[in-house]
Amino acid sequence: MHRFFVKPENIIRDKEVIITGDDVQHITRSLRLKSGDQMIACDGKGTDYLVELIDLNQKEITCRIIESRKSRGEPDIEVTLFQGLPKSDKMDLITQKCTELGIRRIIPVETGRTIVKLNDKKAKRRVERWQKIAYEAAKQSQRGKIPSIGPILNLNEALEMIKKEKYDLFLVPWEEARGNSIRQVLKNWNVDKKAGLKRIAYMIGPEGGLEEKEVQTLIDLGAQPVTLGPRILRTETAGFVVLTVLMYEFLEMEDV
Amino acid sequence: MHRFFVKPENIIRDKEVIITGDDVQHITRSLRLKSGDQMIACDGKGTDYLVELIDLNQKEITCRIIESRKSRGEPDIEVTLFQGLPKSDKMDLITQKCTELGIRRIIPVETGRTIVKLNDKKAKRRVERWQKIAYEAAKQSQRGKIPSIGPILNLNEALEMIKKEKYDLFLVPWEEARGNSIRQVLKNWNVDKKAGLKRIAYMIGPEGGLEEKEVQTLIDLGAQPVTLGPRILRTETAGFVVLTVLMYEFLEMEDV
Repeated sequence: MHRFFVKPENIIRDKEVIITGDDVQHITRSLRLKSGDQMIACDGKGTDYLVELIDLNQKEITCRIIESRKSRGEPDIEVTLFQGLPKSDKMDLITQKCTELGIRRIIPVETGRTIVKLNDKKAKRRVERWQKIAYEAAKQSQRGKIPSIGPILNLNEALEMIKKEKYDLFLVPWEEARGNSIRQVLKNWNVDKKAGLKRIAYMIGPEGGLEEKEVQTLIDLGAQPVTLGPRILRTETAGFVVLTVLMYEFLEMEDV
Repeated sequence: MHRFFVKPENIIRDKEVIITGDDVQHITRSLRLKSGDQMIACDGKGTDYLVELIDLNQKEITCRIIESRKSRGEPDIEVTLFQGLPKSDKMDLITQKCTELGIRRIIPVETGRTIVKLNDKKAKRRVERWQKIAYEAAKQSQRGKIPSIGPILNLNEALEMIKKEKYDLFLVPWEEARGNSIRQVLKNWNVDKKAGLKRIAYMIGPEGGLEEKEVQTLIDLGAQPVTLGPRILRTETAGFVVLTVLMYEFLEMEDV
């Protein structure tokens, strides 16, 4: 069934949904849906509405809500990726793939080995671009929430955020984390303990990796250093590998 | 330490390694290594040689073997991906990421919903291109073997190959595989049983997915249908998600 995101204010007293903007053209012209057809409208906050199209014109579509339910595509764990800002268009790939896999938020971070320099104007445009990629990927993968991307922070700002947010678990993949595989760390919790972990975060370095003193600062804030095994993963690969492992271990890849 | 692949015939009686081709320029000009410096030469068959550079000229470099050891980047499980041939340059990404993650072989397959049509000449060029991507990714990620890519098969040819190869485990991610998550299937084996599984394969559909009758044919050949959870993954994402889960479950992401 076709699926669209709508702004929460376009959901009227749990009875009607109003579709506006580009989706109107898409629904009427490309998909040729008509009065009486059904589709899913998602509020982007984790609720799906099964609706029937009632009234269609060129500017908006009015739908009647048949039933509402929790979006099944939305994981219970809320995962934040702090991503060392990489070169070229790698953030596009990271954003798209991590959205498909269930990320909640991505914060690009300028670390010691970040090479890219973005002025304010360019940074703003990039974040808008990534947010759009996240929107499209959330729609395609049937997420119930649209991940938020940005703002770009420097390392000190990111550390302040980490202190403030008090994540239940914070992982730092690091080549030098001898004897501490991600599997061993995650197996340390039994199922009951895991049930208590909801807000999870991890930081991935840019192309050159994180500096040792950066990792040490994160460890001092409670982060757990982990290895991802003997193969050297590119920065854009490490992000979705950790996310896949988290979704797998926290039972978010089960049939529902 | 710098690392290069060499052809097995350039490893002389376990005593010397001869470097030829483009690597000579790279080693002498870009990296400026000199007589007495050490590096790793890998035979691409799973053995690494720690060598000392002895004699360098513009055409070849002679090295003395100090010691040999099993490449630590090479997983024990041998995983083959049968990938429904996708559009545009998605195979580039699949090849690069799956190589980093430890794939052994990728066979692109023309299934019922494959849209791309490649004539023989174009197909040959594409396979060469993917093989080159696999070589570069194997080098970068410190693999001990270079995955083999291709040839492109049609579905019947792929089915013949699957019959002949008799994989220990064959997975088919399929949206309709109700009640059978990849986690549940993999948890069905205890550690001892898992130790006996070495040759693993899986098939991913192209953009439109596999047809139901294609999945049924695979099931008749012993394949296990599995779901990857409630989020709809793109074809190029599913391949490395399954591979990540396999490497994780089969302890190939441990510290070594």
